Amino acid sequence: MKACRREPVPYTPIWLMRQAGRYMREYREVRARTTFLELCKTPSLAAEVTVTAAERLRVDAAIIFADILLILEPMGIELEFAQGEGPVIHNPVRHADDVKRLREVEDPGALSFVYEAISLTRQELKPDVPLIGFCGAPFTLASYMIEGGGSKNYVHAKKLMYDDHGAWHAMMSLIARALVKYLNAQIDAGAQAVQLFDSWVGCLGPDDYREFVLPHSRAVMQGVKTGVPVIHFGTGTGALLELMREAGGDVIGLDWRVRLDEGWQRVGHDAGVMGNLDPVTLFAETDVLRAHAKRILDQAGGRPGHVFNLGHGILPETPVNNVMALVDMVHEMSSQ
Amino acid sequence: MKACRREPVPYTPIWLMRQAGRYMREYREVRARTTFLELCKTPSLAAEVTVTAAERLRVDAAIIFADILLILEPMGIELEFAQGEGPVIHNPVRHADDVKRLREVEDPGALSFVYEAISLTRQELKPDVPLIGFCGAPFTLASYMIEGGGSKNYVHAKKLMYDDHGAWHAMMSLIARALVKYLNAQIDAGAQAVQLFDSWVGCLGPDDYREFVLPHSRAVMQGVKTGVPVIHFGTGTGALLELMREAGGDVIGLDWRVRLDEGWQRVGHDAGVMGNLDPVTLFAETDVLRAHAKRILDQAGGRPGHVFNLGHGILPETPVNNVMALVDMVHEMSSQ
Repeated sequence: MKACRREPVPYTPIWLMRQAGRYMREYREVRARTTFLELCKTPSLAAEVTVTAAERLRVDAAIIFADILLILEPMGIELEFAQGEGPVIHNPVRHADDVKRLREVEDPGALSFVYEAISLTRQELKPDVPLIGFCGAPFTLASYMIEGGGSKNYVHAKKLMYDDHGAWHAMMSLIARALVKYLNAQIDAGAQAVQLFDSWVGCLGPDDYREFVLPHSRAVMQGVKTGVPVIHFGTGTGALLELMREAGGDVIGLDWRVRLDEGWQRVGHDAGVMGNLDPVTLFAETDVLRAHAKRILDQAGGRPGHVFNLGHGILPETPVNNVMALVDMVHEMSSQ
Repeated sequence: MKACRREPVPYTPIWLMRQAGRYMREYREVRARTTFLELCKTPSLAAEVTVTAAERLRVDAAIIFADILLILEPMGIELEFAQGEGPVIHNPVRHADDVKRLREVEDPGALSFVYEAISLTRQELKPDVPLIGFCGAPFTLASYMIEGGGSKNYVHAKKLMYDDHGAWHAMMSLIARALVKYLNAQIDAGAQAVQLFDSWVGCLGPDDYREFVLPHSRAVMQGVKTGVPVIHFGTGTGALLELMREAGGDVIGLDWRVRLDEGWQRVGHDAGVMGNLDPVTLFAETDVLRAHAKRILDQAGGRPGHVFNLGHGILPETPVNNVMALVDMVHEMSSQ
């Protein structure tokens, strides 16, 4: 929390995106008993995997176990997590008419299982470990809804964006309004910071980002209750960092494709940064991992406002011992 | 050719990566009679699709129809283009021992079908349409060889790179030596410019690029015969442009994720740039396409040294009429 406010800290705090994920035996054991969607919708289980990961790894923050796509269901999107295939949307949005059929999320209670999971987790977590809530950013969610699942080139999403500005902005605004309610309800339930995941925004150039994305991401972040730090994260954003900062966020997430010092300079030192170890370095020898972690700490240079993290989520096959070693290394090297 | 040398031109020249591809009926008709690999290895057919595309689109350059992976076969890699699945490598390189088994490409004649295709194409093309030869860059080829095909996270490639510097550099050097011979043989056969495709390099951060990639890409480009323009292309290179320029190239390829004016400034105005329309804009309405093309020409500002192109290859479902319209638009708008 101090790092998010750019206050001095005794050591650099660290948490890891997807820290409660498939790479961890405890998580796989829970998943063996339930589906992914059931896990998300069962507060006791979501809390269990969230707390287990935070305690086992000894990280400085927990992030609630959930999925960015959960918010799509109350909008009228039929969502399925097919075994081994990732999310599938059975009624993708393709035309202006589909946009009109999307439901305004009036009642954030449709996602009450998330808020209950947050309350439970907050009770079970150690008091000095903050809990982060999150949501997908409007662009990433809109792209999922339009493409109907994962995508390589985002042809459908960009086609709607380019060809029908009215429908595009209507859809993005509707999503943004829902996200404001969703994040604030997470905060009411006990989330102490929130993160906006714009995982797919790196497929856009700066001009398109400014016109089609920035106003909506900004609306979400401006709607978050005052005093709650907002982390604004994307990948492949090497040419978008200034604009992401303009959109908002107390802390900007950097992926590993930019140097942390250069990224921070471009974001501006009046914001914090989070990142930015390549998740693949967790597969390397320990001395390589240490050298890469040290390089990032050196680039941060002890400046207040750095939250150590990966540049993207932990990969499923990652050796858990290396993840634990990384947490210890960052604590040790940054407290010297 | 003038644009590559940054000399004034009457209008901005344009060609399109993968211009002789699956989106074109004439290409699909040829492919219906043969496999992808047979097409690459039959000079008369490779020349036919190359010339047909250049003439139909009225572009200002042709690029020889071939594949970046062809060079892997003489190195001892067993390559297959599986129907609809892209390239598969049956004996991927995973360890130092595998690197030792790679064969030095002593005789560029193993790829004589490429040189014959170039000679034939040069005879059939209009004299004022230059012919571009090409190869994959060492990093992209090494990653293919290690991953054994397409990859999302490059875990195996990066693991070898991080954990065994000796094996990595030995492999990259071997590839670079082969590429120098390959490109110069293409030039001897009639290629008037050459392009290095580092399509996958955007998965690396700048520090890794400098240490593990730059020396080898530089060795390739320095080995190209004097006087032949070299285009150095990559995608997702928003944070690598300065280093790519340092590695070499008369013209640096920009993808659509950077603004052309900012990208050119970072590359330096003592080099040319190629790009950088988002291939997906070819799916949009004509007026959208025109607006995006105009924006790129405006950002180039008439400065000598701009070759118009997409930021990546034409997508398979692209409407051919839009591609033809784009070529005309760029010629018309840039000659005003």
